[in-house]
Parts: sequence; structure tokens; C-alpha cells
Amino acid sequence: MGDRATTALREAVWRANQAIVEAGLVTLSFGNASGVDRERGVMVIKPSGVPYDELRPALMAVVALDDGRVLEGDLRPSSDTPTHLELYRGSPGIGGVVHTHSTAATAWAQARRSIPPFGTTHADHFHGAIPVTRLLTKAEVAGDYEAATGSVIVAALESGGFEALEMPAVLVASHGPFTWGPDPGAAVDNAIALEAVAAMASRTLELDPDAQPMTDYLLERHYRRKHGAGAYYGQGR
Amino acid sequence: MGDRATTALREAVWRANQAIVEAGLVTLSFGNASGVDRERGVMVIKPSGVPYDELRPALMAVVALDDGRVLEGDLRPSSDTPTHLELYRGSPGIGGVVHTHSTAATAWAQARRSIPPFGTTHADHFHGAIPVTRLLTKAEVAGDYEAATGSVIVAALESGGFEALEMPAVLVASHGPFTWGPDPGAAVDNAIALEAVAAMASRTLELDPDAQPMTDYLLERHYRRKHGAGAYYGQGR
Amino acid sequence: MGDRATTALREAVWRANQAIVEAGLVTLSFGNASGVDRERGVMVIKPSGVPYDELRPALMAVVALDDGRVLEGDLRPSSDTPTHLELYRGSPGIGGVVHTHSTAATAWAQARRSIPPFGTTHADHFHGAIPVTRLLTKAEVAGDYEAATGSVIVAALESGGFEALEMPAVLVASHGPFTWGPDPGAAVDNAIALEAVAAMASRTLELDPDAQPMTDYLLERHYRRKHGAGAYYGQGR
Amino acid sequence: MGDRATTALREAVWRANQAIVEAGLVTLSFGNASGVDRERGVMVIKPSGVPYDELRPALMAVVALDDGRVLEGDLRPSSDTPTHLELYRGSPGIGGVVHTHSTAATAWAQARRSIPPFGTTHADHFHGAIPVTRLLTKAEVAGDYEAATGSVIVAALESGGFEALEMPAVLVASHGPFTWGPDPGAAVDNAIALEAVAAMASRTLELDPDAQPMTDYLLERHYRRKHGAGAYYGQGR
Repeated sequence: MGDRATTALREAVWRANQAIVEAGLVTLSFGNASGVDRERGVMVIKPSGVPYDELRPALMAVVALDDGRVLEGDLRPSSDTPTHLELYRGSPGIGGVVHTHSTAATAWAQARRSIPPFGTTHADHFHGAIPVTRLLTKAEVAGDYEAATGSVIVAALESGGFEALEMPAVLVASHGPFTWGPDPGAAVDNAIALEAVAAMASRTLELDPDAQPMTDYLLERHYRRKHGAGAYYGQGR
Repeated sequence: MGDRATTALREAVWRANQAIVEAGLVTLSFGNASGVDRERGVMVIKPSGVPYDELRPALMAVVALDDGRVLEGDLRPSSDTPTHLELYRGSPGIGGVVHTHSTAATAWAQARRSIPPFGTTHADHFHGAIPVTRLLTKAEVAGDYEAATGSVIVAALESGGFEALEMPAVLVASHGPFTWGPDPGAAVDNAIALEAVAAMASRTLELDPDAQPMTDYLLERHYRRKHGAGAYYGQGR
Repeated sequence: MGDRATTALREAVWRANQAIVEAGLVTLSFGNASGVDRERGVMVIKPSGVPYDELRPALMAVVALDDGRVLEGDLRPSSDTPTHLELYRGSPGIGGVVHTHSTAATAWAQARRSIPPFGTTHADHFHGAIPVTRLLTKAEVAGDYEAATGSVIVAALESGGFEALEMPAVLVASHGPFTWGPDPGAAVDNAIALEAVAAMASRTLELDPDAQPMTDYLLERHYRRKHGAGAYYGQGR
Repeated sequence: MGDRATTALREAVWRANQAIVEAGLVTLSFGNASGVDRERGVMVIKPSGVPYDELRPALMAVVALDDGRVLEGDLRPSSDTPTHLELYRGSPGIGGVVHTHSTAATAWAQARRSIPPFGTTHADHFHGAIPVTRLLTKAEVAGDYEAATGSVIVAALESGGFEALEMPAVLVASHGPFTWGPDPGAAVDNAIALEAVAAMASRTLELDPDAQPMTDYLLERHYRRKHGAGAYYGQGR
């Protein structure tokens, strides 16, 4: 460890943790971002309860992907570490995870409603309605609670028939959103997009409580503008 | 091309793209502004998917007004380019176009409701209810989708009996707002005014779901304070 | 004119115009502040349609309180000048007036509802429900429209049995708020307080559409903490 | 007095008063923070009606905890001083108190509704529904009004069966929130958390007017992650 590859990942994870604060998604210390290096079998994550302005790349916690034991650093990793680990293990394609309690998305999580795809902002990022998990049972909460949170997220993706990268967000019921992507920066972008989409969807329902989702063919077209073989958005980089 | 006139237009279009970000109308890269030089037959527009803070006037894409072929620059123009072209072709008076997914206006677009003129802020900019387009058909979305988006905007203006400059905004159903004006800066001002008007209109309906539009004569008076031969707002510059 | 007293008033009015922008009450150029020097019979007001960042004290327009003729300066005064004049003439105690289209207050004006006193934030500034004017008639709008706007504000105060300084805000139906105070700075504070009170009142009704106003005796107590002979808030300066 | 211990408390109270402004919880001068030194029997609090940007540690008012007489300083203490004193006397464990009129929390206070625990953001800070006080009687308002406000807060905690530190916030009906904590900084954090929780709860009810609180066992688990003997959040500092 402690070598160049881990240094780059610490830097990326630190930057992602700063980015969610700058984007206004974090109040106090309710949020954390992580990244993974699957070859080395390590996950880097924010330390628990440290104020954002005291964070530095060197303070990021490094844990083993397989069993979560701390590999480097003196600080305890985020208490949500087992949730992040569960997501990396359950979804081989993802490289970064972000958790926030951003206002609009958390309101949907608290209302236990999935977010319908009302427009192209949604379709540019999420390939269908954004799922909400089932409630955790008393036994799950009493046991390895944070790992169980990861499991119900993976289960929500599966019930929806989604691969993790085509639906890079799930709302945890009575809690808040988790997002992910190929790397920590993409997970941040999806957290920002989710908050925007959640806010717009709430306001759409205020204007029409029976508002209908966009047509399937428009959803498909917009999602495919940005994702997959036929994508034509951006500079093809 | 590449001469002084295009340089000025690139600069104006670049400034308009910055202005919509500074005004808080853009999340991530959901937005673009363009300008036209009808004499030379060129449109200048933001390149596709480039982060706003990396933009410079020299990176703006220059395309032909008639067929959209790229005339200058190495970057692919915005994927919304055919929509902008359709608007310039369908509305001879306009010189700048702005597209955003600003929150309040997009909610109206997603709810597929036109925005009633509830007060003088509205009447100072828009000469009646702000139209929403019809939904695109499956064939339109499967075909030249972005051009079809431009066509339904022009059609919405026509059904409303509006000339483009007296109704410088249309909401695209399940998508978001487009605005325009005599030049790119005026298109930005109309995008800002639209978002303010949309937010106020939502809050008006929260306070009274049966709120009535302003009287026709007050709408007319306020619109005419700022527009046309009898205008007496501003310094007459 | 042009002497020291007018210089101080220009400065105060300029500062008030900056303050409403800094407080987030102004979008584009929808807003203006004025001040009066009753001894000299002059009113100083923002010039019409000049961007806020180009304003300087020397650009403020100086008009006669009696007939509104321009006394100093090359710029046309705000098109709302006759409204301000009407307010100073109808309410001898006031020394500054502010007009904005701030979002929450304008929503109430557009819904044509007076704002009930739901709590002490309201009672600290406004001695009862904040009135909304009647609609202007077709004849009033066709005639001296801006002066008529001032008259219905004064009439709304009178129907409510209010002196201007105990109810330093009125909502003009289908338009937006006007506020005032002993000087331009106090008028700004009342514009800020009004926007806060309007936003809180909307949210209160979202939580309970039948929410009841505060008790009369609590309203009275809070208003009297800050106003009149028994006031004990602040440093008694 | 005037010695090192009071100096540190003045500094902490001054910082807390700045922090509530920086966190966006204060409009104009609607807010105040205090701290206590129980050994010396003194409370330090913001002076009344002084603009926040003129405050300095040396201007903080120092009063006696037992009878509220001014011990140091030339400025009158906040008019809410008797409320703060009542809270310190009624709740021996608390070391700092914050009062604001923050928008979302005040809306709940004005609607006279307690805030249900809809999710983990709530449970991380508040051990159950956040109580709202009863209305003050006419006699209480006519008498020692500010002290009575403190008494109904303490009574609301008692009816809920709460110790002050496990429920560090109460909404005063028709007024706004008070929060507290072991020290002034913790009281500020609870004021920030309360506003976030109040805003999320309002939006949750917009999405589902019959939204159900979180399960008791999830509330308990999250509260205990951060509080008490079994806490495992943070660095155990």
C-alpha cells in the first residue's frame, strides 16, 4: 500500500468528498464518498465524523475490500463503510460511491416513493424510475445494520432489473440517497443530478399530482444519447 | 470566417453561456446558448459536454445556418444544435437562443402546463401565457429528434398566434425551456425572467389553486411599457 | 439643490438600491428604492432600467415631490416614480420607499391574498395582516397607471385602519410588494422582513391549510416590544 | 469576572452568534446565542438589536444566572434573556442555547405541529418527535412574557418525557425554534440540523400527506450510533 496508486485514489476520494460539500449536498457532516481499487482489493473512504474542512488526502481511511479491516491510517473509517463495501461487492462495475442526505432526494426517501422519470434531465442519467428500498427489518437493524443497508440497495436494483451503472442511484427508505459511477467523480455527478431531478419531480407533482412520466421512447432516446454504443453527446472522449 | 465579425459573436455566445451558469440556471452541463450572424449564414454555439469552466470564446463551435455543417473548430457542437437551427430558421427576428433545465421552468414543462400570466413580472417579458409544446411522436423521436424539438417549439408559437419576439420562451413537454431574443444577452435575460416567473407562478398556485390570471388590460399595459413604439421604461437607449 | 443635503440623500438612496440586490430581493432590474427630503420638497429615486452594477449616487434621479418634474440629472427616473410620489404624499410620516418583485411576497400579491400574522417574526414588523390592494380598473390602467397604483396602496392602508408606519408593507394585486419606513434603510429592512414573513406563511399553510393566526395579545406584545413608548428591544438608541 | 474564564465564554458565544448567521439561519437580527458558566453563575448572551457585523466578543452581555442582573458591559442583553435563563435553570445539563427564526422550523412552529421523525437525519440528532409548546395565555404574555416562554419549553420537554440533551430542540408555538447542547457550538449544530430536518419533513409531507414516521427500532439505532455509551460514530474524541 502507501504507494502511488493508493495516493491517486486517496486524492480522488478526498476531492469527491469536497465536491459534495461545494455542490450544497451536505449539511454538517451528513455525507461521504469512497473509491475502490479492485486490483489491489482496497477501498478508500472518508474518516468518520471529521469536519470537511479538516480533511486532507492523507487522512482518508484505507480498508480491505474483502473484510473491511483498516489497512492504513489512524482514523476510524466512516460508520457507513459496510454499506459502501456491500455495494462494491454486489456491483462489480462500479468504482466510486457517494452518500448524502441532500434535501430533495431525502424527502423522496422519507416518503418511500420511487422517483418517476418526468423528463429528459432524469433520462440523461437514470434509465427508469429511481428505486426506493424496502424497510429494514428489526433483526437487520439490530444486527450488522450498515451492511444490511447495502444489501437492500443491491436488492432494489435487482428487483428493478437494473444493472448498477444504468441506474446509478437508489433511495434508502427512511434514510437518504446513495449514488455511484465508474469512478468517485462520476458518483458525485450522479448525486448532483439526482438532487436536481428529485427537486424538479417534487415541483412537477405540485403542479399536477397526476403528472405522467415521459414516454418510454423519449426516455430511451435520451438515455442512449449519453450512454452505450450509440452515444453522441459530448466529445467522444 | 475566422474574421472580426465571427470573433465578436464567439465572444457574445461564450459570455451568454457563462451568464446562465452565474444566474444559477445550469446544473452540471444541462444548458447551452447560441447566437446567429444571418448575413454570413453562421450560428455559433457551445461545444457538446464541455465543462463550463473550460470554455473559452475560441472553443465555441461555428456551424452553417442552412445545413448545420461545422465550419470552424475541432469540437463537436452541442447535441441540441439542430433545435437551435430550427428556431433561427423558423423565426427570422431572433439573434440568440438559450436552453436550460432550470428547476422551476422545467417543472412546468414536465407537468406539461403552460404558465398563466399571474402578474406584472410576467407581463414585462411575455405577451401572454407561456406555451408548452405537444409531445413528440415515436416517429419524431426515432428520426431527427433534435430538429423535431425545434419544429414543435415553432408550432407552439404559431398555435398561440405569437411572433417569436413577443413570446420569447416556450416549454418543451417532458424536457425544459428554450428562450430567445434579438441577441444572446437578451435570450439570457429572458431565461432568467422565465425562471423567476415560473417559480412565482408555482407559489401562487400553492396559495390558491384557482388563482386567476391578471386582467388583459394590465397585461397589455405592462408589456407595452417595455416593448414597441409606446415604450417608456428605461433610458430609451 | 446639488448641495450637501441632497448628496446625503442620493447616497442613502443608492445604498438602499444596492441593499435590495444584496439581500436577494431583485431579479434583473425589477426593483427600486427612493427617499424624500420633505423640507426641500424633493424625492430621490433610481433611474429607469439602469443595471444595478452601473448605478452610482450621482446617477440617482432627483424629482420634485409636488409634480414629479425632473430637477437634476440626465437620466429618466424609474417608471414607478408616480407610485412613490403618491405614497409620500398620502403618508406624511414616511421617508423611504422600496419596491421589489421578491418571490414569496409576489406570490401572495399574485394570489391576491393578504398575509395573516402567523408568528412573532410578522408581529415584530407589521401590526396585523399585511393588506393586498383591490384590482385596478380598466380606466385606471389606461390613465395615469403608476399614480393609480400608489392610490390603491394608500386606500388599502385606510381600509385596514392602519397608519403607514405601523403597517409598512402592502401587496399590489397581480403585481408585487411595496414597503416603506422612516428612511430608505428602514424601508429596505421592511422589504427583507416581508419576504421572510411571506415565505414562512406559505410554508405554514402547506403544513396546515387551516392554520390560525397568532393570538391578538401575542401580536400586540411583540409589536410593542419594538415600537412605541414601551419598546424595550434594542439599545434604545 | 472579567477574567480568563469569562473571556473564553464571551469568545465562544460570539462565535456561535456568527455561526448562525453564516449558516443562513438568521434574517436581519432575528436570532441569538448564549452560553453558561455554572460554576461562576454567569450567562453570556448577545446584546439586544446590535447588527451581527458590529458584534465583537467584548460586546457580549454578561448576566447573573440566578436573577439576570447585568454583571458586565454597557449594552442591554438580548430581550430574550429571561427565556435563556429559564432554560439553563430548568435543564442542568445544557451549556449553550440558540434561538433563531429559521424559515422551515418556524413554519412548523407557526403551524403548531411537532416534527415527526421521518428519517435518519432526524434520528441522528433528536430522540423522537420534536415537540411544539402550548400557546401562552393572555396572563403569561401580559406578565413576564420572555420567562414564560422558557417555562413552556421546559414543560414541553417534560410532557414528552425527554431529558434536555436527548431532545435538544423545541418549537415555540406562533414563534420559532430554540435549540441547545452541552456548549454553544453544539447548540448551533442542533439549530442547523433542526432546520435541515424541518425542511425535509415539509417536503416529505408534500410527497405523501400521510407519510409514516420511521420505525422505532431504526430511530433508536441511529440515535445510539451517535449518543451514549454504545456510540460508534466519529473518532471517539
